[in-house]
Amino acid sequence: MSAAPPPAPVCADDYARRAQSLLPPAVAAYIDGGSGDDQALRANREAFAAVSLLPRVLRRDGTGSTRLQLFGRTLRHPILLAPVARHGLVHADAAAATARAARATASVMVASTQSSLPLETIAAALDGLGWFQLYLQPRREDTLALVRRAEAAGFRALVLTLDAPVQMASREAMRAGPAGSPGDVVPNLARQSPPPQRELEADASLVFQGAMADAPDWEDLAWLRRETALPIVAKGVAHPDDAARLRELGVDGIAVSNHGGRALAAAPASLHLLPAIRARLGDAFPLLLDGGVRSGADVFKALAFGADAVMIGRPQLHALAVAGAAGVAHLLKSLRDELEVTMALTGCFRLADIDRRAVFERTIPC
Amino acid sequence: MSAAPPPAPVCADDYARRAQSLLPPAVAAYIDGGSGDDQALRANREAFAAVSLLPRVLRRDGTGSTRLQLFGRTLRHPILLAPVARHGLVHADAAAATARAARATASVMVASTQSSLPLETIAAALDGLGWFQLYLQPRREDTLALVRRAEAAGFRALVLTLDAPVQMASREAMRAGPAGSPGDVVPNLARQSPPPQRELEADASLVFQGAMADAPDWEDLAWLRRETALPIVAKGVAHPDDAARLRELGVDGIAVSNHGGRALAAAPASLHLLPAIRARLGDAFPLLLDGGVRSGADVFKALAFGADAVMIGRPQLHALAVAGAAGVAHLLKSLRDELEVTMALTGCFRLADIDRRAVFERTIPC
Amino acid sequence: MSAAPPPAPVCADDYARRAQSLLPPAVAAYIDGGSGDDQALRANREAFAAVSLLPRVLRRDGTGSTRLQLFGRTLRHPILLAPVARHGLVHADAAAATARAARATASVMVASTQSSLPLETIAAALDGLGWFQLYLQPRREDTLALVRRAEAAGFRALVLTLDAPVQMASREAMRAGPAGSPGDVVPNLARQSPPPQRELEADASLVFQGAMADAPDWEDLAWLRRETALPIVAKGVAHPDDAARLRELGVDGIAVSNHGGRALAAAPASLHLLPAIRARLGDAFPLLLDGGVRSGADVFKALAFGADAVMIGRPQLHALAVAGAAGVAHLLKSLRDELEVTMALTGCFRLADIDRRAVFERTIPC
Amino acid sequence: MSAAPPPAPVCADDYARRAQSLLPPAVAAYIDGGSGDDQALRANREAFAAVSLLPRVLRRDGTGSTRLQLFGRTLRHPILLAPVARHGLVHADAAAATARAARATASVMVASTQSSLPLETIAAALDGLGWFQLYLQPRREDTLALVRRAEAAGFRALVLTLDAPVQMASREAMRAGPAGSPGDVVPNLARQSPPPQRELEADASLVFQGAMADAPDWEDLAWLRRETALPIVAKGVAHPDDAARLRELGVDGIAVSNHGGRALAAAPASLHLLPAIRARLGDAFPLLLDGGVRSGADVFKALAFGADAVMIGRPQLHALAVAGAAGVAHLLKSLRDELEVTMALTGCFRLADIDRRAVFERTIPC
Repeated sequence: MSAAPPPAPVCADDYARRAQSLLPPAVAAYIDGGSGDDQALRANREAFAAVSLLPRVLRRDGTGSTRLQLFGRTLRHPILLAPVARHGLVHADAAAATARAARATASVMVASTQSSLPLETIAAALDGLGWFQLYLQPRREDTLALVRRAEAAGFRALVLTLDAPVQMASREAMRAGPAGSPGDVVPNLARQSPPPQRELEADASLVFQGAMADAPDWEDLAWLRRETALPIVAKGVAHPDDAARLRELGVDGIAVSNHGGRALAAAPASLHLLPAIRARLGDAFPLLLDGGVRSGADVFKALAFGADAVMIGRPQLHALAVAGAAGVAHLLKSLRDELEVTMALTGCFRLADIDRRAVFERTIPC
Repeated sequence: MSAAPPPAPVCADDYARRAQSLLPPAVAAYIDGGSGDDQALRANREAFAAVSLLPRVLRRDGTGSTRLQLFGRTLRHPILLAPVARHGLVHADAAAATARAARATASVMVASTQSSLPLETIAAALDGLGWFQLYLQPRREDTLALVRRAEAAGFRALVLTLDAPVQMASREAMRAGPAGSPGDVVPNLARQSPPPQRELEADASLVFQGAMADAPDWEDLAWLRRETALPIVAKGVAHPDDAARLRELGVDGIAVSNHGGRALAAAPASLHLLPAIRARLGDAFPLLLDGGVRSGADVFKALAFGADAVMIGRPQLHALAVAGAAGVAHLLKSLRDELEVTMALTGCFRLADIDRRAVFERTIPC
Repeated sequence: MSAAPPPAPVCADDYARRAQSLLPPAVAAYIDGGSGDDQALRANREAFAAVSLLPRVLRRDGTGSTRLQLFGRTLRHPILLAPVARHGLVHADAAAATARAARATASVMVASTQSSLPLETIAAALDGLGWFQLYLQPRREDTLALVRRAEAAGFRALVLTLDAPVQMASREAMRAGPAGSPGDVVPNLARQSPPPQRELEADASLVFQGAMADAPDWEDLAWLRRETALPIVAKGVAHPDDAARLRELGVDGIAVSNHGGRALAAAPASLHLLPAIRARLGDAFPLLLDGGVRSGADVFKALAFGADAVMIGRPQLHALAVAGAAGVAHLLKSLRDELEVTMALTGCFRLADIDRRAVFERTIPC
Repeated sequence: MSAAPPPAPVCADDYARRAQSLLPPAVAAYIDGGSGDDQALRANREAFAAVSLLPRVLRRDGTGSTRLQLFGRTLRHPILLAPVARHGLVHADAAAATARAARATASVMVASTQSSLPLETIAAALDGLGWFQLYLQPRREDTLALVRRAEAAGFRALVLTLDAPVQMASREAMRAGPAGSPGDVVPNLARQSPPPQRELEADASLVFQGAMADAPDWEDLAWLRRETALPIVAKGVAHPDDAARLRELGVDGIAVSNHGGRALAAAPASLHLLPAIRARLGDAFPLLLDGGVRSGADVFKALAFGADAVMIGRPQLHALAVAGAAGVAHLLKSLRDELEVTMALTGCFRLADIDRRAVFERTIPC
């Protein structure tokens, strides 16, 4: 066969396939793997595929928009870049390239604590479009140092990741071996002292007497709430009781997420978790979805089940690997275009118009 | 292996496979692609496959027929050729060949506004079996000119397509590149002036401030209703509320359709939309189904869930590509034969006998 | 690789695979094909696979048996050989070989009207284990001649096939071409005059004004009932209303069947039809299932949903093609062995013990 | 491609795949096959895959543990090694190697009557962590001899297998031929006289008049209960009525199992059987699950539906084949690690915290 160049990517799945063939196997395995048998990873995607939307006709409207208000600011569209560690694995410019794409498309980017670049570098490239993802550190002073740096750098919100106090590597990644170099450090944490060493008894569990003994708890959250005026979004929430308690403690928003299928291996699809949490929180409380969004139709479906906005994770790395900042910008533009077409064809011209009425529930028995 | 000639096509799926291998990849991708991730395209087919029908025995009847009355005329069978653009991509005789097949099999053909041939050419070949598919044009005078030409050419009904005021190319087609030549024009629209140019602001959306600002609305429909005495079939309807409003405004028939999975990517299967719309419209109102029909059993199933007739889209291009007018005629004959056998074996000897009682609903839990 | 001989078949599926590779493609296609898109063919199998059975423990019983009473006689087991046309396509000894296997395993064989051998030849080999399958012929005198020959030859029951007054060849068979020789005749029908020729009008339908105008009806059945004292089993019944009417007219048994997926393409799985028909007929009326049985567990499942016995079709041809009479006998022995093990492990030591209580209905939501 | 060594196994499925490629085909077929068409074998796995668990957040707890009390003793974790015959087929050290792995990981091992080694050899290696699996022998004195040996050797419980009074070889194993050598003997049974020979009549059934005439019954169980003070776990129970009767007769625990899909071919998934049996037995009665557990998440799911502990079967042979005692120990360690992570992320820090509330039941219609 003649070797025609492959066609240009036209959607998130194209970027995923292309990245899979371009990246070193260990890096691809690290990025694309879930946890355990990848049940949650698959569930995230299958949940979207099972939802149908109802078209409407003859609805001319020249005033449509994907704008939304969140934490007192206007966002141009509801597609955020989820916090993702180590962009440097796939592109030399690392998260700085992703940030340029975010700025070019007026997208909020959530910079990761575990970024390949210092948070200040990313904030500078984002010009007000940045939020900062935070892990509560073993020592409160270390957490506080990160919060103060994030505030100073101009991040507009904190995204507090709660779903991985302990985490197993993906099986695919364990088989493929390490994705980076032995000496890789996390710049944001480089100034911290090493974590305190806990003495474990002989038959102690690294999970129970190790990680979980030092895991953050509700008191840590209450402390953080007192320490900063930035809006706090609690990410990785699945249970309505947890969502309600977080709201009571002063959290400003909830992000339903299963860590892209990388935390609890058997977690439900993020989409399936939305309705019960929205019902508990009421209509007005900011609610985001993370997990499995790969098209503008998926964005719409998340909003129809109760989300105000969504975050995309792996696709940003795929696009970055394939085409750098231009790839990420094209990906974001494509998702927004697809969202707009989905809104137009369902007769929803504002995000607030999107609700369960747009979802088709079939009446023919299967 | 010896290179035996491939067997002759015996059904719509055979034509589809053969056409896929015969046509230039870009043309095949253009024809066979849906929109987005092809969710609606797949749903159309899966919906039919999930329905079972109940055989009956010992019903001798020599008076069976597939005839139906529609808009005051008798049709010999309920299988219509859906409006399909650009037959010229697959056969030199374009829609004129398809029209000969329609006439040879007493089938109604719906000529597309975007046909490769002028509507008058197709009407002449159809001899009273033609309906004309209409898109409302940006300028009413252009719409009216098309209507007057259709009336003059002898088309018996207008099929007004409502489900694609904005449309994305299929991903498969985007990857494959353009299907036709750069200079392709639509003959029916050649006399029109270029569409009015709308000035968009820098951050405006091509979807919302572009296409949807100029999209047809309910007033346009009311206007069209006043301007022509031809029966109007509104095509692309999915929501019962839209169906009811269209009937109130004087539309003569409804065609449930998701544009063959080419409009809203996440649209439900056309078959699944039928029951609620039939329930809203009552038994007597003309209702058609378009989307996923590939066999006579599928035709029967559509009628069992409330349709009066069906339209087939892609299969006509597949048969045209493989064997020209003879292929399309053979396809239509095969579908009608399969429908007759399905009717005979379910003991339904007239289309009016076909209803939900013929559908099996299982009682064994899965 | 070294060419080790393939392992001996151990189950019906093994015979099916082996036969597929041994037989001429046109013959394999003729035997294995269903009708239309093979929906009913697949449904027959999938229905069995979805049913689970509940094991029981500590039930010692040395008196178990697969015996049943049917039409005043004792059968050693409930696995009958369904009527199948043209055994001669796969083995030189044709149905005579199958009959030897039936006799060796004490199995009832239903000889087909369309057998490759005269009915008398098969009856002689069966020694009282034969039933005769009958199609009502266009002329009653021809039907009567077949009945009288069947009575004289010693067949113990008539199986009247009702589900195929008109039939389309399977698509796979149409593609593969004719399975036999042009001059093939049906010995049982060789003495008949050619069927009466009906003059059809130009636009008449071969289905409606042809086959269905001459199809058997309820009067023909009532006539047959008066003409013979043999038990009549009506085969191809799907609707409870038809089953009830057949019983009222004096039929002695019902065989639920979709003709192995060769009649109505969209017919439900035979297994799914059983419960409603059993409920209509009451517990005592003889009820058989045909369609999809490939293991002793399948036999058990059919009985659990209401059948008294089952018929197997294609597997007898597969086994005959692979290993002649010995193959068919081994197949029947294997199915009976599997049935006995299934009965033993579910604690059912007589066929009458098998009912819905043995079927597991799950309580964990999917 | 260069021949890099395959990556080290990281989970039970890895060991399964690796063993499949390392073992002689007949041995792999013997180990991995189920019975009949493997319906129960597949069902065991699919049941686990369909269950999702709900993550919880911010639950710091340094006191977590996988400990449980069973029959008056403390187990370090709820993952037992199911009784498995003939470890010698895959490793020279046979069950002695497995026993070393059990001891190294503080796991209970259930030694099989049909072990390749005498029960005393295994008990010695287990140092109090052993239970003994028992089949009721045709002669009570033989059964009693085994019980006395097990008591003397220090086994702490008897696991009485009830689900295979008659058993067919797996089809895959039948095709692959014998897995061991012709002269293979079962050491534990070597001292027994040959089983009594029953004279069968010519038309008798090996199943009904053979195996089932000599099968154990409820009286045998009552006798065994009187003869030993060891806890008795009845294994292979599926029906709540059987479970209740076993408890009434003094059995100390129930193991829900379908013999790894090797007994009744159409048995339900073990997981699906749990809820009804737990409901019947009440909260306090010891209940184990065997069948389909391949990860720590699976262990958790079994406990959530009512089990107190689980047994793993095939994976121990896979790990033994791939890496001997070290492989089995690594497998057990991995499963326990996965269980601990699953507990930590669902906020369950003791086994008693695990119940149906951790299971997600979705509210979005499919």
